[in-house]
Amino acid sequence: MSTIVPVILCGGSGTRLWPRSRASKPKPFLPLIGEQTLFEATQTRCMGRDDFAPPVVVTGRQHLTHVEEQLVDAAAQVIVEPQARNTAAAIALAALRLPADAVMLVCPSDHHIGNCAAFTVAALGAAALAHDGWLVAFGIQAAAPETGFGYIRQGEPLGDAGFKVSRFVEKPDLATAQVFLAEGGYHWNGGIFAFSAGVFLTELEKYRPQIAAAAREAVERGTAEGNRFHPDAEAFAGIESESVDYAVMENTTRAAMVHADMAWSDIGNWQALHAALDCDEAGNAHDGRVELVDCTNVLVTSDGPRVSVIGASDLIIVVDGDEVLVTTTDGAQKVGKLHGAVNQ
Amino acid sequence: MSTIVPVILCGGSGTRLWPRSRASKPKPFLPLIGEQTLFEATQTRCMGRDDFAPPVVVTGRQHLTHVEEQLVDAAAQVIVEPQARNTAAAIALAALRLPADAVMLVCPSDHHIGNCAAFTVAALGAAALAHDGWLVAFGIQAAAPETGFGYIRQGEPLGDAGFKVSRFVEKPDLATAQVFLAEGGYHWNGGIFAFSAGVFLTELEKYRPQIAAAAREAVERGTAEGNRFHPDAEAFAGIESESVDYAVMENTTRAAMVHADMAWSDIGNWQALHAALDCDEAGNAHDGRVELVDCTNVLVTSDGPRVSVIGASDLIIVVDGDEVLVTTTDGAQKVGKLHGAVNQ
Repeated sequence: MSTIVPVILCGGSGTRLWPRSRASKPKPFLPLIGEQTLFEATQTRCMGRDDFAPPVVVTGRQHLTHVEEQLVDAAAQVIVEPQARNTAAAIALAALRLPADAVMLVCPSDHHIGNCAAFTVAALGAAALAHDGWLVAFGIQAAAPETGFGYIRQGEPLGDAGFKVSRFVEKPDLATAQVFLAEGGYHWNGGIFAFSAGVFLTELEKYRPQIAAAAREAVERGTAEGNRFHPDAEAFAGIESESVDYAVMENTTRAAMVHADMAWSDIGNWQALHAALDCDEAGNAHDGRVELVDCTNVLVTSDGPRVSVIGASDLIIVVDGDEVLVTTTDGAQKVGKLHGAVNQ
Repeated sequence: MSTIVPVILCGGSGTRLWPRSRASKPKPFLPLIGEQTLFEATQTRCMGRDDFAPPVVVTGRQHLTHVEEQLVDAAAQVIVEPQARNTAAAIALAALRLPADAVMLVCPSDHHIGNCAAFTVAALGAAALAHDGWLVAFGIQAAAPETGFGYIRQGEPLGDAGFKVSRFVEKPDLATAQVFLAEGGYHWNGGIFAFSAGVFLTELEKYRPQIAAAAREAVERGTAEGNRFHPDAEAFAGIESESVDYAVMENTTRAAMVHADMAWSDIGNWQALHAALDCDEAGNAHDGRVELVDCTNVLVTSDGPRVSVIGASDLIIVVDGDEVLVTTTDGAQKVGKLHGAVNQ
């Protein structure tokens, strides 16, 4: 079967992990869990097997320094987007730089996957389906009625490797999410996909010809510089900003899914990070110089000052440079709207 | 009647307002409430009336720089203790430097008094009783069954100005404090006293002749240097360390008290400071760059970094240099036992 080319998307910034994550050094480039940064861990997950080729990293100019500092495989290719145009355009650029029969394994660079072996199993299953012409989404076992994710409804089986997609569902309200969870057969859309470059481009041309044409022009008029590739800025500027879900996955008749029960988290906010970390018996997790007295379910992270906490429950404390954030677990959803997060 | 000489005790340090209060700059010298430091406010309360002479400040060598920087009245006298020997010795030094008929108004330097007019009324009443040979304690209206204060039981009236003391009670347990509050007639001992220098020394000689003799020797062999006075270190070192309550007030038959309903607080911990501050409608108080979202009864103070808080209730957050403290209101009692507070 074809080689699997990891396509790692290092695009957006986001504000929900402020103040640790900042516009100048966003989430993918931080060691939020363990020693590696999320971007480094994403690369490492897709290495060490003959099936995996060196990755293609798609990023923006403002993140290029971080990307190149944290590249694990010197043979990685880096596509430098002149500006952010969402995932359909980013994936199109990578597809146009690859052979038509290459299987792309599209991975966000800022997710955490606790069970790498399960990831590999899912990736190989997805690649097999992709080789047969399917556009494959990773369906994450839904563990709670989350309203922050899109859902994938599982259809009929495709052999042992996966299933047809019955339908994609945009982020539901709570009642709908609860129904999904009760009914079963619905999975979180983790934003991880596998498809061959040629099939993806065919489907993109069918459903979003403007994006496909502009991306093709940007690549044809682009310039290579060592392992970097710079798409043409003018052509790229004309591309419509749209997600791959919306542009392709929800339209194609060839959508498939694999089960991926791999301790996945998008680390979408501080509460999600806390849940993904190893905690002590009282549910506490911390780094740095920290003293906890009578605390339960507390997360403390500090880049310098000692943090002393007494009597707190369900609290998150972040000290980063000139910013201190203290939020209840429930309040973590609102971090992105703080003045400090908005006016970076 | 006699002139009132404020005797301001600037002795101890304490750990319960760590990390804002540090061994190197303790509580009296911090602007915890309003623009003035507690020491400055203590001086200011005892000024602006002909009745009040310039104060005598008793402090230790380690605090002398802060004291002299914050002296409000250039005519103040400063007695520099070679080491800390508790309040009986400190007051004895001041008494020995004053005329026998001077009325001493002994004030801790680290308390907050919200109603200065009520303080003045109480001080004048106490001074009148002191002039008549009474040793007068300020009895603070007990507002709660506090176990952190000594209590004074009110005895028979002494004219309009005050009452005899029926007895002094050391810090009670909660059940006893609740009985006191229910019974009435018990007041908190705020550590503020008035007596004439001569009467105080007579009583001290009667009940603690060793302290009186050693203090007298320390003063006789001491040296003046401008407005500073240095008691003899060797003689002072021999003084027993004892509180004025224990050495004199609980023994004398001439103990009296005045009512002092003056919005007093010893600001004994962060909870007490929060209670003494002006708060907004939700019970929040803060200084510095602070953003509060969905917070109630939260105190935030920062010496620099911005502090953003979401969803917290009954929480105290202190940012000071290389230390961050987060404690529940109830947990504030335990601040003094934190590693950072103990190992200053």
